[in-house]
Amino acid sequence: MLVVGELINASRKAIGEAIKAQDKAAIQKVALDQWEAGADYIDVNAGIFVGKEADYLTWLVKLVQEATDNAPCCIDSPDPKAIEQALSVHNGIAMINSISLEKERYEAIMPVIAGTDLKVVALCMSDEGMPETADERLAIADKLINDIVKNNVPLDNIYVDPLVQPVSTKDTFGLEFLDAVEAIMKKFEGVHTICGLSNISYGLPLRKVLNQNFAVMAISRGLDGLIINPLDKQMMANIIIAETLIGRDSYCSNYLTAYRSGKFE
Amino acid sequence: MLVVGELINASRKAIGEAIKAQDKAAIQKVALDQWEAGADYIDVNAGIFVGKEADYLTWLVKLVQEATDNAPCCIDSPDPKAIEQALSVHNGIAMINSISLEKERYEAIMPVIAGTDLKVVALCMSDEGMPETADERLAIADKLINDIVKNNVPLDNIYVDPLVQPVSTKDTFGLEFLDAVEAIMKKFEGVHTICGLSNISYGLPLRKVLNQNFAVMAISRGLDGLIINPLDKQMMANIIIAETLIGRDSYCSNYLTAYRSGKFE
Repeated sequence: MLVVGELINASRKAIGEAIKAQDKAAIQKVALDQWEAGADYIDVNAGIFVGKEADYLTWLVKLVQEATDNAPCCIDSPDPKAIEQALSVHNGIAMINSISLEKERYEAIMPVIAGTDLKVVALCMSDEGMPETADERLAIADKLINDIVKNNVPLDNIYVDPLVQPVSTKDTFGLEFLDAVEAIMKKFEGVHTICGLSNISYGLPLRKVLNQNFAVMAISRGLDGLIINPLDKQMMANIIIAETLIGRDSYCSNYLTAYRSGKFE
Repeated sequence: MLVVGELINASRKAIGEAIKAQDKAAIQKVALDQWEAGADYIDVNAGIFVGKEADYLTWLVKLVQEATDNAPCCIDSPDPKAIEQALSVHNGIAMINSISLEKERYEAIMPVIAGTDLKVVALCMSDEGMPETADERLAIADKLINDIVKNNVPLDNIYVDPLVQPVSTKDTFGLEFLDAVEAIMKKFEGVHTICGLSNISYGLPLRKVLNQNFAVMAISRGLDGLIINPLDKQMMANIIIAETLIGRDSYCSNYLTAYRSGKFE
């Protein structure tokens, strides 16, 4: 399971304020906390700062890597110039979040990732809007994956995000997402799937509990990446439990190690 | 989701002793507690009492139905004589637990259920032993379902139990079970699947947590019956949450009702 820590996002109030105040210590604490909690990538997003996004994103990458001894970043922007500037200071192999089939975003991001070793999040979104069914998602994923591979990005570096929609909006939205994960993982052996979960619970009480259980379901369908808050201990425990239950944990050794080190308390 | 309350089983020490002592109150308390906690059927099993099983089973059915204003029972025995005697005092439509493809059990139980309205648990077990893969389970289910239907039991009354095996024994045992649930529910539209969960966590610490998460996974694959302890509040909460997440809860109304009545506390 690849975990992207989602907390350094300018749309979160505390982070937006820390960026504005250029508060290094505040950003670096959130970076280090996520890294120590087990994140594999640290997402950085400065999207709310129009005109300053590229500079702030670059500043965030430097801070995160300084605080964490070069944890890889997930550079989260639709703007190729902001991504390229942030990449210029990044050590190691970054993840780009994200490309989609929307013409404008597609044409902007493809040249940045073509022929590179970058990991890339591929959103199942097109100019026809957000897909609702598993079949619609699979059709977009099919085209995106083939295009990205043709641009010399190996399948193993592609993380398809089928896009979670709220079950409060339509009863079947959860199931359509899960079916999409399964269909994509079966059809494109070697590709990855990733998602943020929190949309599933939009408009309902006890959102965390719904998100945690939806993660368990998605992992059982083959999902192998999550963009989450790694400081959510129950979520991190659920990931270990889910992976053990579906056979991604030889001799249950991760489970037993986590149990002995108190991660389920 | 059909919930069978599993607690009145003579192999559990307290129940075995209560049966031996003919302690009506003890049995009836466990029956009523399960019924009030939301069980749809109350399992009754007196299998450890060789020679007395039929009489004890019949006694249990009477007690359970007296305590619960005729809650339906899940009559749990491989012995057709014990089942028939217990059925003779049962009010309403019982569930029979269970038939399998093992020749002896098959030939004994089929005449009891043929042409009736009884619900029946059909175990994916044959004389070749316990199946390990999803394909092996599907092959047994295929034969069992077809045979039972030919004996004039409607598909809607059949609950296939694909049989859970411990993930501590083989990493893939959880996934093979889940794949079997999905395959059976897809191939035989209108049939049901049911299982007891606790085998999944055999040999591991924190068994309850593993069982609760495995239930969530199985429901997301289509499972619509569980043989569980309905007094396990977290398990009952997980069932509601899982059904909401996969679209079995119109407008999330069960979820919201359960939330408001404090079931998630």
